[in-house]
Amino acid sequence: MSTTTHGPKGLEGITAANSSICYIDGDQGVLAYRGIDIHELADQSTFEEVCFLLWFGRLPNSSELNELNLNLARERKLDASIISLLQQAPAHALPMDVLRTIVSALSYYDPEEKVNDHDANLRKAIRITAQIAYVVAAYDRIRKGKPLVEPDRSLSHAGNFLYLLNGEIPSPTAERALDIALILHADHELNASTFAARVVAATLSDMHSAVTAAVGALKGPLHGGANEAVFHILEAIDASGANPADYVKGMLTQKQKVPGFGHRVYHTEDPRATHLRTMSRELGESSGNPKWYEISHKIEEFIVADRKLNANVDFYSASTYRTLGIDVDLFTPVFAVSRVSGWTAHVIEQLNDNRLIRPRADYQGPAYPNRFVPMERR
Amino acid sequence: MSTTTHGPKGLEGITAANSSICYIDGDQGVLAYRGIDIHELADQSTFEEVCFLLWFGRLPNSSELNELNLNLARERKLDASIISLLQQAPAHALPMDVLRTIVSALSYYDPEEKVNDHDANLRKAIRITAQIAYVVAAYDRIRKGKPLVEPDRSLSHAGNFLYLLNGEIPSPTAERALDIALILHADHELNASTFAARVVAATLSDMHSAVTAAVGALKGPLHGGANEAVFHILEAIDASGANPADYVKGMLTQKQKVPGFGHRVYHTEDPRATHLRTMSRELGESSGNPKWYEISHKIEEFIVADRKLNANVDFYSASTYRTLGIDVDLFTPVFAVSRVSGWTAHVIEQLNDNRLIRPRADYQGPAYPNRFVPMERR
Repeated sequence: MSTTTHGPKGLEGITAANSSICYIDGDQGVLAYRGIDIHELADQSTFEEVCFLLWFGRLPNSSELNELNLNLARERKLDASIISLLQQAPAHALPMDVLRTIVSALSYYDPEEKVNDHDANLRKAIRITAQIAYVVAAYDRIRKGKPLVEPDRSLSHAGNFLYLLNGEIPSPTAERALDIALILHADHELNASTFAARVVAATLSDMHSAVTAAVGALKGPLHGGANEAVFHILEAIDASGANPADYVKGMLTQKQKVPGFGHRVYHTEDPRATHLRTMSRELGESSGNPKWYEISHKIEEFIVADRKLNANVDFYSASTYRTLGIDVDLFTPVFAVSRVSGWTAHVIEQLNDNRLIRPRADYQGPAYPNRFVPMERR
Repeated sequence: MSTTTHGPKGLEGITAANSSICYIDGDQGVLAYRGIDIHELADQSTFEEVCFLLWFGRLPNSSELNELNLNLARERKLDASIISLLQQAPAHALPMDVLRTIVSALSYYDPEEKVNDHDANLRKAIRITAQIAYVVAAYDRIRKGKPLVEPDRSLSHAGNFLYLLNGEIPSPTAERALDIALILHADHELNASTFAARVVAATLSDMHSAVTAAVGALKGPLHGGANEAVFHILEAIDASGANPADYVKGMLTQKQKVPGFGHRVYHTEDPRATHLRTMSRELGESSGNPKWYEISHKIEEFIVADRKLNANVDFYSASTYRTLGIDVDLFTPVFAVSRVSGWTAHVIEQLNDNRLIRPRADYQGPAYPNRFVPMERR
């Protein structure tokens, strides 16, 4: 006899896998990678260290970190055919559609595409993490008719991304700001894109299939797409000169959801928002353009007071990214540049103790047997 | 306070969504689409009727079916850029990697890519179902250096696929055999690829992201990839002249899993296997090449007797597809040609009453707080 347990809608509160990667306490507002608090990591670590932590389960010593940096540098290149595919994407294509397609096509040129073992997947994690940053930057250069930039081995992953994107060595402040943003976005347990990656990987498909699925999931406005939606509101407020609180009050009156607030898992403030708020403010001050932070902060004050909802990771990443000079339609691709580290760590973990992820549905359709009626009697 | 319920590994037996599409009774070996038994559909229906049933919830009348056929015919075309992308896929690329990439790229040329409402998604379901068959066939023609074939409006979807693939109008027997195979593979509730599609769609991403994820999941040997694995065994037995029972006994002795047997959901025979066994035998007889059926049947007799495991959908689809002249590395793409009807139906259903699919993980990692150790002390 088969028994079925009725799961809640959206699998809310159901554990779907064992994981040693990400610790979350939604009541206390705690996020930790491998048990290390996100605030300690944001203050003291780098994205490369965090990648190592996610992939290998502990912080690297200095020779391990050097080796990872060398490997990332070695993989920070794109096959000429990938550049050509980027050039062929039509101008009207959505950046996340292009990123999803290119990540899928990276499999064509992966030297280990037919290997799905632990060590090969660790190498693919490094490779795809290096490549995806380059793809996002190259995509933006190409669509703007600018020449591609060669990576600079003296720069960090965050610094290289900004350099490949803008063609100028970033300021230490900008490099470190993006580095922290990448740390904060690197993993978040079984968020929808990571869960999609694990569902795909559990069929014993492959790393590229899993990451491609994750990019597609991240695109959604209920997931990574929210940071772009936040910025469109900041822009509308700026363009209209409206009072930010009045503007979002108007949205709520029209039953519109204000993106960037509330979270399935946190019942207190999202600890990433705490950090991003500070960064958004500091970047605004240091760049002499505090506008996006100020509008954001006024929205937040209103929503917290009026709706008792806290800002989530997406809310202050919008003003942070824009102040870093990143185009709004690249916000979600930049999220992918970071989250790929978590996706790949979860795929590797899933395959260490794999079982096909295959739930059941609660059938609500026509009662069986619903007889077939021949065409002439329909 | 947040509460978490511990789900079983792989979410086995947990319902993850309400659905009115597919009814399965794993104890009785029943599969039904919208309550209509799969045997009645295989005997009396067509793939196009089944598509309508999956998408619209009931069988079409004759004018509705005509309209669907017209729409499928109208969408059975590929943008020249898609043909070009197929031509650029390197010869060593895996067919499912190419299919995943091309399905993703189809979004570039979709006239409704930025629309994610119910009606647009029904049109996308038709469009992608028409296109994916053409893509698989065109891919095979291109890699073999053969000219592309124009679709023939007098043929069914199954007939067109074989025509686009082989360049010859298929025999009525072959056309009907593929038609039945497409019906049998069209949907299977929350199988891993369909579940991946729903996880992606639930972020409010889009149909192409969802179907791309599903293609990636289907690739896995624990899912759609199993039919290719089955055929490799049939081939090895044929080439070596081994006794089929002895061959698989040897595999079991070496702790190898014999693909095509057992199923997470069915505790009796998979009703699709019942149908595919008959089809495999009949196609073998009518084509004068009963070899693949005969080897399959001997393997099945041994595994049923020795392991009490039943053949699943993948087992007899291998011999069926091969006898239809389909290359072994196209078996999983052909599965996608059918299952896209179910994927798209599930995406539409998910969006009718959406909630983000975001489970939790059962944390097993280092206890929090696991203090950050500065580099010099590691």
